[in-house]
Amino acid sequence: MSLKGIFASEAREQGKSARTRARLMDAAVGVFARVGFEAASVNEIALAADVANGTFYLHFKDKDEIVSAVAFRIAGDITRQLDDAMSDIDDAIERTCFATRQFIDIACSEPEWGWALFRAAWFLPELRKRSNEYLRADLQRGARQGSFTVKIDAFLVDMFASMVLTALFGRLSGEADKDAGSRVAELQLRMLGVPGAKAKKTAWRKLEPLKLKVSTALVGLAKASE
Amino acid sequence: MSLKGIFASEAREQGKSARTRARLMDAAVGVFARVGFEAASVNEIALAADVANGTFYLHFKDKDEIVSAVAFRIAGDITRQLDDAMSDIDDAIERTCFATRQFIDIACSEPEWGWALFRAAWFLPELRKRSNEYLRADLQRGARQGSFTVKIDAFLVDMFASMVLTALFGRLSGEADKDAGSRVAELQLRMLGVPGAKAKKTAWRKLEPLKLKVSTALVGLAKASE
Repeated sequence: MSLKGIFASEAREQGKSARTRARLMDAAVGVFARVGFEAASVNEIALAADVANGTFYLHFKDKDEIVSAVAFRIAGDITRQLDDAMSDIDDAIERTCFATRQFIDIACSEPEWGWALFRAAWFLPELRKRSNEYLRADLQRGARQGSFTVKIDAFLVDMFASMVLTALFGRLSGEADKDAGSRVAELQLRMLGVPGAKAKKTAWRKLEPLKLKVSTALVGLAKASE
Repeated sequence: MSLKGIFASEAREQGKSARTRARLMDAAVGVFARVGFEAASVNEIALAADVANGTFYLHFKDKDEIVSAVAFRIAGDITRQLDDAMSDIDDAIERTCFATRQFIDIACSEPEWGWALFRAAWFLPELRKRSNEYLRADLQRGARQGSFTVKIDAFLVDMFASMVLTALFGRLSGEADKDAGSRVAELQLRMLGVPGAKAKKTAWRKLEPLKLKVSTALVGLAKASE
């Protein structure tokens, strides 16, 4: 790609402020990919973007805020990759279960990014809106297949997503143990109308972990910018 | 009560800092009860507590933070009153349904306080811990009565509480309509193992509103201080 930075290239038709913001996000992706989450500082991001520190703060309140902006994009990537990984699964019970469990496992594989995803999902309504589209499609599929017997609408999709986030919060905060993904998937299936025995069997089946990490998505973003 | 302020009287054995904080909270309760939520200012609260504005900010970051501290107390009152209102209900299906629906209705009857309760429940772990004790008792009752067929532990109680909060968020933000309480109660019962038809019937039954408002609890707190 000839343009410097994937965010910058997307913002090239926009105003100066949007372009500077995009440049900062590209710089942040590079810094996160290079030095990791903890070590990345506002200083270094501003330096990499070739702007003054003060300019950074015109666009983002703090490191957390730019992390959320990047997490937003990463979440999109993960969602798409999860969807690809499920391309040969037709059964909606299997699909919703798989997505819930894998998403929680991926987000927990790198806790700092897990928290960033959690914050982004909770505080960036646009992120929930997008990932809820995938969820809604699977829930409607289950209704068509006769497995899910509740009304599928925004309220239900939101409830389903919140349950995933609550389990993620439990895992990240250390209150819930490693099987939080299975537990919440089982509860979700029961709620949707799947008989208890079947819900249990599906939710606790051994899961092959995907080779999908937040940092891989990040490196992908960084590479796409080169 | 001879001591000025219910918070102050509780803090009288504590250090100076805790007593000042308590005096600010008593002042806040008085100001909220007198001029309402919106009109209350840090200025006025500090004035009523007879401390400088700067002292206020030593104890609370902003108005939101003292609101949360007061909401914490109010939430406790509401929970206790809800529990009293259910004293003649033995059936756990009825109890959990009643508590979920009434809590959401009460919190939404005064939206500013609804948001304050939502924030407090989400960000003050201590509040969740306390209200979860009531929830857990009802969920265990349901397990004993044979109505609930899932494992009752901290994970489940948290999930149940999050669902209530998600429905509350939907109501407050205008995304969900007035029946959000019934909808989430129905989903909760299904999740717990109540057959769909029974869950629907219980969750959508006409509900007699309690004469319980956040502002009433507030006035109660203010009165107890006189």
